[in-house]
Amino acid sequence: MFNAKVYITLKKSIADPQGNAMKEALLAMKYDGVKDVRMGKLIEIKLENKNAAEAEKRVRDMCETLLANTVIEDYTYDILEVGP
Amino acid sequence: MFNAKVYITLKKSIADPQGNAMKEALLAMKYDGVKDVRMGKLIEIKLENKNAAEAEKRVRDMCETLLANTVIEDYTYDILEVGP
Repeated sequence: MFNAKVYITLKKSIADPQGNAMKEALLAMKYDGVKDVRMGKLIEIKLENKNAAEAEKRVRDMCETLLANTVIEDYTYDILEVGP
Repeated sequence: MFNAKVYITLKKSIADPQGNAMKEALLAMKYDGVKDVRMGKLIEIKLENKNAAEAEKRVRDMCETLLANTVIEDYTYDILEVGP
């Protein structure tokens, strides 16, 4: 069994109105050190695969085909093997 | 300058319809090893604070007061010091 954590972030060049709104809210709450906020997604997936290489390939395929919109988003992932 | 990454996840006991929909979509796409999918948020914050202890306190306060809904969500964070 593998636990994959997929981190999806907007590309640097893409505007992030949700992040900006959160930044403005934090500044309004007197968190005045805040310079930038970007919102992304964290997707945790439990996978049953034979080996780590296969799990890694699966996760990359899922990111490319469903999880991330690669036109505007970047993705990274961690995969951790856990007990059966 | 500090880069904080805040990871917000639904508590285990809270149903995650968005994660379930994603799991069903992955299964429909023949990713048959998928056992569970949970959706969370990743919030990247650039902070200007004097020192790491102050930045850490700030980030924890932000999570408690704005970023996470602590009734239904858990949060963790990484803070990395970067050049000025």
